[in-house]
Amino acid sequence: MERLKERARALGLWNLFLTKEYKEGAGLSNYEYAVLCEIMGHSPNLAPEACNCSAPDTGNMEVFAKYGSAAQKQKWLEPLLNGQIRSAFAMTEPAVASSDATNICTRIERQGSGYVVNGRKWWISGAGHPRCAVFITMGKTDLGASKYGQQSIVVVPADAPGVTVVRPLTVFGYDDAPHGHCEVVFDNVWVPAENLILGEGRGFEVIQGRLGPGRIHHCMRSLGMAERALALMVDRVQSRVTFGRKIVEHGVVLDYIAKSRMELESARMLVLRAADMIDKVGAKNAKKEIAMAKVVVPSSVLTILDRAIQMFGAGGVGQDTPLAEFWAGMRTLRIADGPDEVHTRQIAQLEIKEQNAKLAARKRNAAMSQAKL
Amino acid sequence: MERLKERARALGLWNLFLTKEYKEGAGLSNYEYAVLCEIMGHSPNLAPEACNCSAPDTGNMEVFAKYGSAAQKQKWLEPLLNGQIRSAFAMTEPAVASSDATNICTRIERQGSGYVVNGRKWWISGAGHPRCAVFITMGKTDLGASKYGQQSIVVVPADAPGVTVVRPLTVFGYDDAPHGHCEVVFDNVWVPAENLILGEGRGFEVIQGRLGPGRIHHCMRSLGMAERALALMVDRVQSRVTFGRKIVEHGVVLDYIAKSRMELESARMLVLRAADMIDKVGAKNAKKEIAMAKVVVPSSVLTILDRAIQMFGAGGVGQDTPLAEFWAGMRTLRIADGPDEVHTRQIAQLEIKEQNAKLAARKRNAAMSQAKL
Amino acid sequence: MERLKERARALGLWNLFLTKEYKEGAGLSNYEYAVLCEIMGHSPNLAPEACNCSAPDTGNMEVFAKYGSAAQKQKWLEPLLNGQIRSAFAMTEPAVASSDATNICTRIERQGSGYVVNGRKWWISGAGHPRCAVFITMGKTDLGASKYGQQSIVVVPADAPGVTVVRPLTVFGYDDAPHGHCEVVFDNVWVPAENLILGEGRGFEVIQGRLGPGRIHHCMRSLGMAERALALMVDRVQSRVTFGRKIVEHGVVLDYIAKSRMELESARMLVLRAADMIDKVGAKNAKKEIAMAKVVVPSSVLTILDRAIQMFGAGGVGQDTPLAEFWAGMRTLRIADGPDEVHTRQIAQLEIKEQNAKLAARKRNAAMSQAKL
Amino acid sequence: MERLKERARALGLWNLFLTKEYKEGAGLSNYEYAVLCEIMGHSPNLAPEACNCSAPDTGNMEVFAKYGSAAQKQKWLEPLLNGQIRSAFAMTEPAVASSDATNICTRIERQGSGYVVNGRKWWISGAGHPRCAVFITMGKTDLGASKYGQQSIVVVPADAPGVTVVRPLTVFGYDDAPHGHCEVVFDNVWVPAENLILGEGRGFEVIQGRLGPGRIHHCMRSLGMAERALALMVDRVQSRVTFGRKIVEHGVVLDYIAKSRMELESARMLVLRAADMIDKVGAKNAKKEIAMAKVVVPSSVLTILDRAIQMFGAGGVGQDTPLAEFWAGMRTLRIADGPDEVHTRQIAQLEIKEQNAKLAARKRNAAMSQAKL
Repeated sequence: MERLKERARALGLWNLFLTKEYKEGAGLSNYEYAVLCEIMGHSPNLAPEACNCSAPDTGNMEVFAKYGSAAQKQKWLEPLLNGQIRSAFAMTEPAVASSDATNICTRIERQGSGYVVNGRKWWISGAGHPRCAVFITMGKTDLGASKYGQQSIVVVPADAPGVTVVRPLTVFGYDDAPHGHCEVVFDNVWVPAENLILGEGRGFEVIQGRLGPGRIHHCMRSLGMAERALALMVDRVQSRVTFGRKIVEHGVVLDYIAKSRMELESARMLVLRAADMIDKVGAKNAKKEIAMAKVVVPSSVLTILDRAIQMFGAGGVGQDTPLAEFWAGMRTLRIADGPDEVHTRQIAQLEIKEQNAKLAARKRNAAMSQAKL
Repeated sequence: MERLKERARALGLWNLFLTKEYKEGAGLSNYEYAVLCEIMGHSPNLAPEACNCSAPDTGNMEVFAKYGSAAQKQKWLEPLLNGQIRSAFAMTEPAVASSDATNICTRIERQGSGYVVNGRKWWISGAGHPRCAVFITMGKTDLGASKYGQQSIVVVPADAPGVTVVRPLTVFGYDDAPHGHCEVVFDNVWVPAENLILGEGRGFEVIQGRLGPGRIHHCMRSLGMAERALALMVDRVQSRVTFGRKIVEHGVVLDYIAKSRMELESARMLVLRAADMIDKVGAKNAKKEIAMAKVVVPSSVLTILDRAIQMFGAGGVGQDTPLAEFWAGMRTLRIADGPDEVHTRQIAQLEIKEQNAKLAARKRNAAMSQAKL
Repeated sequence: MERLKERARALGLWNLFLTKEYKEGAGLSNYEYAVLCEIMGHSPNLAPEACNCSAPDTGNMEVFAKYGSAAQKQKWLEPLLNGQIRSAFAMTEPAVASSDATNICTRIERQGSGYVVNGRKWWISGAGHPRCAVFITMGKTDLGASKYGQQSIVVVPADAPGVTVVRPLTVFGYDDAPHGHCEVVFDNVWVPAENLILGEGRGFEVIQGRLGPGRIHHCMRSLGMAERALALMVDRVQSRVTFGRKIVEHGVVLDYIAKSRMELESARMLVLRAADMIDKVGAKNAKKEIAMAKVVVPSSVLTILDRAIQMFGAGGVGQDTPLAEFWAGMRTLRIADGPDEVHTRQIAQLEIKEQNAKLAARKRNAAMSQAKL
Repeated sequence: MERLKERARALGLWNLFLTKEYKEGAGLSNYEYAVLCEIMGHSPNLAPEACNCSAPDTGNMEVFAKYGSAAQKQKWLEPLLNGQIRSAFAMTEPAVASSDATNICTRIERQGSGYVVNGRKWWISGAGHPRCAVFITMGKTDLGASKYGQQSIVVVPADAPGVTVVRPLTVFGYDDAPHGHCEVVFDNVWVPAENLILGEGRGFEVIQGRLGPGRIHHCMRSLGMAERALALMVDRVQSRVTFGRKIVEHGVVLDYIAKSRMELESARMLVLRAADMIDKVGAKNAKKEIAMAKVVVPSSVLTILDRAIQMFGAGGVGQDTPLAEFWAGMRTLRIADGPDEVHTRQIAQLEIKEQNAKLAARKRNAAMSQAKL
C-alpha cells in the first residue's frame, strides 16, 4: 500500500477529492472527480486509499479544510493530506435513532480551558485502523439551546485518556479489518477548547457542510463496483454450460444483463448530474439531486450485484469473487449518512414545495392575463 | 385545431421534429427537439398535431425526406409538411408475430408498370383519420431473396381501389377516434411502380431509417405526460382529507411522490442522452442508447401514472382526469415499434459484444506488457 | 342471457353467493362458493349474471337478507333473487375522498313521513342497467351525531322523482354498457320512512356487514380471469415464431409463465383461507385475512394479465382477446371498496396489535417463571 | 448443546424430520414436521441441532434410511440418529456449473475390492465440524454410460487417507464455524466397495430421493426466521423516535409491516401445501409445489429481512441482531439445491405440459360433443 501511495502521488493521483475551491486539492471539479472516483471503485479496497481518497478521511479533510482553524489544519489536515495519519467521524450512537442527528446525546461539557466528552458511539468507520489518530466527534454542548443549536463538533485525539475502542462491528460477517467499524466509548475524555470546530452549537453547520459532495463519493465508487460486477457476470455466463447450453443462452440471463446495464446507466447519470450541479450551483442548491443519487444508486447497484452473485452460484457468496463483499458494503450505503427513507421523504418534500411554487406562479400568470383583458 | 395550427406556424413552432440535416425542417438538433417534444407531451392530443409533430406523420415525413424521390416528395411530403394531409404506416399484421419484421407476409407483386398489394394489416394508427391520404406499406416483393432482402415499401394512396379500413381497434377501450388504430385490408390494390420507395428489397433499410430518432419521440412526449401526472398527484394529495389527515400525510404517499420524481429524472436523462448521441454519432451508433430509452421510459411512466391514478381513486380511471387515457396510450409503447423483450435482448447482445471487446483488449494489453519485460 | 339464466336456475346454479346462514340461498359455505366463483370468473361478463351472482346485486341482496324488514324483503329482495330486477349501491361521491366513508356528505333529511335525499354520487355500478330498480343509498341523517353515527342507508327507487343518471363514467376506455358506472344526482328525492334500512345512524353497521364476504367475491372471480389469461398466454407463446424460434423459447418467457403460476397459487390460497376463516370464525374475526386477499389478489392478477398482454403484442391491448378488458376491470379493484393503501394500513395496525399482545404475553410468562423460582 | 440435546430427546423432540414411513423417526407427517420446523427456525443455530434436525444431516440420514445397506445403516445411520456423529454431502464442484448435476466430474473408479475417489468439491456444509465423520460423495463411475447413468454415490469416511479439508468458504463474511462450508479435496481416496450406495450409476436416483422433502425443510425454517424478524421490526419501530415521531408513524413503515405479513402468509401456505402434497401424493407428484415453495420462500423472506434490517439502521447489518446472519444464510438458499432460475424453468415446463394436456382434453371433449350431434 505504501508503495502504491508513492506511485499514485508521483502520478498526481493524490487527494483528488478536494475540488478546486480548496487550494490543498488536485484542482478538479466534482464532475471530474466523479469520473475518477468511479474508476477507483473498481478496486474499492486498494485504489481509494492508494490515492488518499478513502472515506471517512475525505469528508474529514473537507471539514478541516473548510472549517478548521490554522492550528487545526496544521495539526491534522496536513498529515491527513500526506496520508500519514487516518481519521474517524464519530456521530452515530447505539442508544438513539441517529438518522435524526438531533437525537445524538453524547455530552461535550465545557470545563475550564477545555471540554469533557462522555458518550458511546458505534459504527465508527476507520476507528480500528492502527494509524487512526483522530475522532471528529459530535455531541451536545448546550441542552437548553434550540433543537439545531445544541450540537457541537470537537476533535478528539485517538490516544486521549478515556477513549476506548470497545469492539469491531461486523457488516454481514465482514469486520473490514484493520479499518473496521467500531464501537467507541468516550469516558470523561478531556480536550482543549481549541479542539472545538467552528464554535459551540454549530455542529449541524459542520455536518451539513461535510455531507454535501461526500454524500455522492460513495455513489461514484459504487458505479465502479457495479461495472466490475457486470463484467464478471458477462464473462461468467459465457464460460459455463448447464443443460446443454451456455448459461447465457438460458432463460432470463440476457434480461439480467440488459437490466443491469440500464440501471447502471441511469444511476451514473444521476450521480454525474448531482456532481455537476454541485459544481455549478453549490451543494446546498443541489440537495434534491444529491438525495436522488444517494437513494437510487445503492439500490440499483445492489440489484446488479445480486444478479451477478446468482450467475456465479455458490461462488458468488464466497471469497473467490469480490461480489459478496461488494454487496455487504453496498448494503450499508442504504443506511449510512441517513437511511433511504429519510432521503426519500426529503425528496418528496422538496418536490411538493417546487410543485406548489409552480402552481402558484401559473395561477398568478393566469390572473395577470385575465386582468389585462 | 386549424386555428391552433395557424398560430403554431406563425410562431415558428412547426415541423420541429425534422432536424437540421433536413432542409425542410425547423433546424433543431434531436436534443433540442426532445425538450420541446416533452412540453408538447403535456397535452398529447392537441399540441403535437397543432405543431405538425404528431405520430405517425413525423416518421412518415422522415421517410419521404430521407428516401423519397422528387416526385414522391412533391406529392406527399409537401402536403404533409403543410399539415394538409395525414398518413399511416402499414407494417404490423394480425397473422404473424410482427415484432420480427421478416415475418411480414403481405405480398407486393410486380405487375406491368406497377405493383399489386395483397394483405391484411392491423394497428395502423391514423388510418381512421378523414384526412389520412396515404399508407406507407411494407410487404414482400421477392420470396426467394435472403431473409432481409424480401421486404419492400410502397406508397399506397388511401383512396386506391381495394383498400378497405375494416374496423377500428381499441386500446383498453379507447378507439382514439378519429385518428384510430385500424385493421386494413389490401385486396389486389394496384399502385404505379414509382410508388416504390428506395427500391425492391430495401424495406429493412427504410424501416431502420424510420425508427431511429422516431423511436424516442414517443419517449420524449411521455416525459411530459409523466410531469403532468406528477403535478396532478401532488395537487390532489394536498387537497383531500381521509381519516383526519390530508392524504399527503398518510403512509406511502411521500414515497410515491419521491419515487415518481426519481424515476422521471432517470427516464429523462436516458432520453436526452439518446437524443444527444443521435446528434453526435448518428442513430446507428446510438442503437443501445435508443433501445435503453425505449425500454425504460414507458415502464417508468406507467408506474408514475399508476400511482397518480391510485391517488385519484375512482376518479383516476375515468374520463375526468387524463390519467387513464395517458396510461392506455403509454401501455401500447411497451409493444409498439417492437416489444420490450426484443429491445432488451438487443441491449444485452450489444453489452456482451462490448464487454468481450474490452476483455480482449485487456488481454492484448497484458500480453504486450508481458512481452516488453 | 335470459336463456342462460333459465338453464343455470334449472341446474341449481342460482344465488350461490348466499351462503348457508341465509335460508334464501343455495346453502354453500364461503369456501365452496369461492371455488365456484373462480369458475364463473373465467367468463366475467356472462357467467356471474347467468347464475344471479353478479356485483353489486350480490352485496345488495345480502343487505336486504341481513338487515331488511319483511316489507323490504318482499319488495326488493324477492325480485332480486329471481333475477327480475337489478340494483345499485350508491355510496361514493365526487366531492369527497370516499375511501373514508365518514366523508360521505349526501343529506338524508327527515321530513314528515319520509326522508328527502340530496346529493351527488358517482361510480355507481349498475346504475345504467335498464332493469336497475333500486339504489341503496348512503347519506347523513344527523350532522350532530358522533362521526360513525351520522350516516344512514335508505332505499331509493330508481324511478323516484329527482333521481337523475347524469352520465356513464368510463373505466379506462370502457363504459361497461349497459350496466355502466354512472354519476347520479339525487335532487330533493322523497322516500317513505319505511325505506330506511336498520335505523337512523346505522349506516356504518350496514356497510360493514355488506363488505365482509363481498369483499372477496371479486377476488375469487379474479382468479378465474387469471387462469384464463395464463392459459391464453401458454397457448400463444407456443404458436408464434420470432427470430427463428417459438416465442416460448425466448428469453424471459418461461420466467413469465412460472412467475404467473406462483403468484396465482399464492393469491388463490389467500382467498380460500379468507373464505374458510369467514366460515369458521365469522367475517369480523377474519378481517386481516380478508384485507390481505383484497390487497394481494388484484395486484397479482394485474401482473399476470400484463404479462399475457405483452405476449400477445398489439393484439393484447385490443378487443380480440379479453385481456385488456380484464385488466381495466381488475385495475379498479385496487380502488373499489377502499384503495390498497387503506387496507394495507389496516393490516399493519392489526399486525402491530397482535405482536404487542404476544410480546406482553411472553413478558408475563417470563415474569411468572421468574416468580416461581 | 449436549445438554439441550439430552433435554430435547427426553421430550421426544428428536429426529422429527424422519416422517412416518421411516421406522427410525418420530412418526410425523411432513405437514406436521413443517409446523415444528418453522418453530425451530426461530433459532436456527440452536434448535435444529438440539433436536437432531439440522442440515445436511437430515438429508443424509434420509439417504441412509432409504437406500443404505444394513451395514451402512449400522455404521453411519445409527450414530447419526443418536447425534453422535455429523455428516456432509459432497456434490458441488468449483470447476463445473453444478446446478446441472450431470456436470459433476469427480472420478470414482473401481479398483480391486473398492473404489478410488479423485476430485475437488466445495461448499461442503458441515465438513468443518470436528465430529463430521462421513462424506456422502457424488462422482462418475462410468464415463461411457448415458448422461444420467454416469454418476454414483459412495460414502467416504472423513478420516480416510487422501481426504483434505482445504479451507472454509465464507457466506458473505460469515464462516459459520465450526460447521463451515468447505473446499474438500479427494486425492486417491480408497473406499471399500461396500461403501457404494444403491449401485453404480444410480447417483441421480439417490440425489433425487434426497432432495424431495429435504428441499422444503429449509423453507420451513425460513418462515421461523421471518417471523422472528417481523417481531423484531414491529418492536423496534415502536421504540425509537425520529423527527418528533415514533418510527412507526413515518411514511412507509406501516407499508413495510403489512407487506411483510402478506408475503410471509403466502410463503407459509406454499410450504404447507407442498408438505401436504408430499404426504398425500408423494414427493415425485409434488414436484411443482415443492419447486414453487423453493423459489418463492427465500426471496420473500429476504425481502422481509431486508426491511427489518433497514428499520434497525446500522444495528441491522451487525452482530447485535440476528438479521444480517439470517439474511446471509437465506441468500444462499436461492442457490443451494439448484438456483432459482433452474426451478423456475422447471415450473414453467410443468405448467406448459399441464396446460397442453388440458387444452387437448378440451378439444377432445368438443370433438366428442360435436360427434354426438
